[in-house]
Amino acid sequence: MKVALDIMGGDYAPLEILKGAYLASQEFKDLELMLVGKSSLIKEYLEKENPKFKFSLIEASENIEMADSPALSVRRKKDSSIVKGVELIKNKEADAFVSCGNTGALVCASTLYLGLIEGIERPGIGLVLPTLKGSSLMIDVGANIDSKPLHLFQYALMAEVYSQKVLNKPDPSLGLLNIGEEETKGPEFLRETSSLLKKNFSNFLGNIEPKDIFMGICDCIISDGLAGNIALKVSEGFAEAVAKFLISEVKKDFLGRLGLGLLKRSLRRFYQMIDYAEYGGAPLLGVNGVVIIGHGRSSAKAVKNAIRVALKELEVNINEEIKVRIKN
Amino acid sequence: MKVALDIMGGDYAPLEILKGAYLASQEFKDLELMLVGKSSLIKEYLEKENPKFKFSLIEASENIEMADSPALSVRRKKDSSIVKGVELIKNKEADAFVSCGNTGALVCASTLYLGLIEGIERPGIGLVLPTLKGSSLMIDVGANIDSKPLHLFQYALMAEVYSQKVLNKPDPSLGLLNIGEEETKGPEFLRETSSLLKKNFSNFLGNIEPKDIFMGICDCIISDGLAGNIALKVSEGFAEAVAKFLISEVKKDFLGRLGLGLLKRSLRRFYQMIDYAEYGGAPLLGVNGVVIIGHGRSSAKAVKNAIRVALKELEVNINEEIKVRIKN
Repeated sequence: MKVALDIMGGDYAPLEILKGAYLASQEFKDLELMLVGKSSLIKEYLEKENPKFKFSLIEASENIEMADSPALSVRRKKDSSIVKGVELIKNKEADAFVSCGNTGALVCASTLYLGLIEGIERPGIGLVLPTLKGSSLMIDVGANIDSKPLHLFQYALMAEVYSQKVLNKPDPSLGLLNIGEEETKGPEFLRETSSLLKKNFSNFLGNIEPKDIFMGICDCIISDGLAGNIALKVSEGFAEAVAKFLISEVKKDFLGRLGLGLLKRSLRRFYQMIDYAEYGGAPLLGVNGVVIIGHGRSSAKAVKNAIRVALKELEVNINEEIKVRIKN
Repeated sequence: MKVALDIMGGDYAPLEILKGAYLASQEFKDLELMLVGKSSLIKEYLEKENPKFKFSLIEASENIEMADSPALSVRRKKDSSIVKGVELIKNKEADAFVSCGNTGALVCASTLYLGLIEGIERPGIGLVLPTLKGSSLMIDVGANIDSKPLHLFQYALMAEVYSQKVLNKPDPSLGLLNIGEEETKGPEFLRETSSLLKKNFSNFLGNIEPKDIFMGICDCIISDGLAGNIALKVSEGFAEAVAKFLISEVKKDFLGRLGLGLLKRSLRRFYQMIDYAEYGGAPLLGVNGVVIIGHGRSSAKAVKNAIRVALKELEVNINEEIKVRIKN
C-alpha cells in the first residue's frame, strides 16, 4: 500500500517526520512510502542520521505555512507538499496521504482535488479522543465551521461506519455535542440535528454536554466543527496549564518534589492515556481518498501512528463502506 | 444594600444556599438579605441548624427545575423563586438578585422583566476564570448562542468597564475567542468582530485560541455564547476526568499513594486556584439590574462569594458605568 507523507508540515518538520517515516518503514511490512517535499532536506537527514530504508521521493518546492490562508495558498502554491500529496491520490499514484501541516489547506486541497464521496455534502475531521472508558470518535473537529443538520447527520453515518470498521466497535453509540442534555437546549440547528439523529439511529443517546466528552459516555460524538474544535483545543490547553501549574507549585516545597517523584509511574500511565501520539492522526472523512491529518506538534511516534491509521483505513476500504452506508 | 437570594435553585439547594446566606450575613455588614422560596424549607433549616441571622422572607410557591425550558417556565411559573426574585429588582424592593438555579430561565426572566440597558442589544454572562497569571473575564459564556458582531462588540465594552470597576484592572487587554490566531481564521461573524474590535480598542490583542484561555494572555476574553459555554464546560469536565483518572491510577500502587499524600499541600493550592467557589457567581451583564448567576453546584462558600460579587457591583454602580460607556 502506497502512502504519501508530507515532510514539510508540522512544528518539528522535517526531522521528526522523517524519523517517523523510518519507524513506519521498519514496522509496517506492506508499506510503500512516498516522501513529499524538498529533496535537499531529505538528503541532509539521510547523510546525518544514516538510516537505511526504502522510499520514493516526490519533489515539492513550496511549503504552505501554518499561518497561510487555506483557500489562497492551495490555489497559489501548486508546487507545495500538500497540493502535490493530494494530487498523488488523485492520479492514483498513492493510496493515501498523511500530513501534519496546515489543516485548513489540507482540507481545502483534498476537497478541491479529490472531490467528496457521492452524497456527502461536507468533509469532516474525525478524532479519536481518550476517555475514562477507552476512547470516543469525535467528528467534526474543525473542517466545517458552518454545519447544517444534514452535514451533522452525515457525520453520524460516517462515524458509525468508521467506528465499526476501523475502531472495531460493532454497535457504536452516538451522542450530539450540545450545551445541555435536554432536547430544548442549544441553537436551532443542533435541536434539528438531534431529532434527525433520534429518528435514524437506534443507538443515539441524545445530547452530550461538553463536560462529559472525556467521561466515555458514547462511542461517537457528533459535533459541528466550531464547537468540536474549541472543545478539543480547550482541553489541550487546560491540560498544559494544569501541568505547568503543578510543576511550578511542586518545586516550591521538598515534600512536593518527593511526592511528584513517587507519582512518576502513575503520571506516565496517565500521560500515555492522553497522549495524542498514541492515537496517530485524524482521518479526514467524506473525501474521495484516504487523507490523514497529523497533529501540528507530531513527534516521530505520532507520525508513525498516523501512517498506521492510513494503512488500517486502506485495509478495510473505509471509503467504499461509507459509500454503501450513504446510499442506504 | 438589599440582595435577594433564590433558595430553591442549585444542586445543593436549599441547605447550602441557606448556609451561604448565613455566612454572608455574618461577613457583610451592610447587607440586607431577602430569601426567596418556600418558607417551609427555611423554617426547617432554622429549626435544625438554629442559626441567628436577620433576613426578610419572600414566599415563592413554585420552582423552575434545571430541565425546564427557560422561555416556557418563565411565562408559566409566575410564582417561581426566579421570577419573584427578578420582580423584586423591577419593583425596586431589592437592589440585586442571586440565583444558582436554571441559568436560561434566569437570563430570560431578567431580560423580560428588567429590560436591557439602553443601547445594549443582548445580555451576556461574564465569568471570571482562573489562569496561570491571575484571572480573565470571559463574556459571553452562554446567554446568547446566536451572537452577531455588534453583540460581541458590546460585550467587549461591558467587559472593559467591568474589569476596570469591579476587578480593579485599570487598563484591561482584550482578546477574541476564535479557532486560530490569524485574522483569516474562523467563521465570518468572528472575522467581522475582530476588525470591529481592532478599530475600537487600543488594547485589543487579536484572536485568542481556545488552548490559551487558561494561560492568562489577556484580561478579557470576548466570546460568542456557544463557544464560551463549550470552552467552560469542557475544561470543567476535563479537570474532573483528570482527577478521577489520577485517583484511580494512584490507588493501584503504594508509591503512588505515598506520593499523592506528599503532594497534598500543592494539590490543595491548585484546587484553590481553580475553585469556582472562590470567584463567586457570574454577572449577567447588559440587563437593567444587578443579577448574579451562581454555579449549579454552588457550595455555601460559593453562595457567599456570589453575594460578595453582587455587593461589589452595587458599590461601584456598574450599570451606570456601562450606560456611560455605551453612550460614548
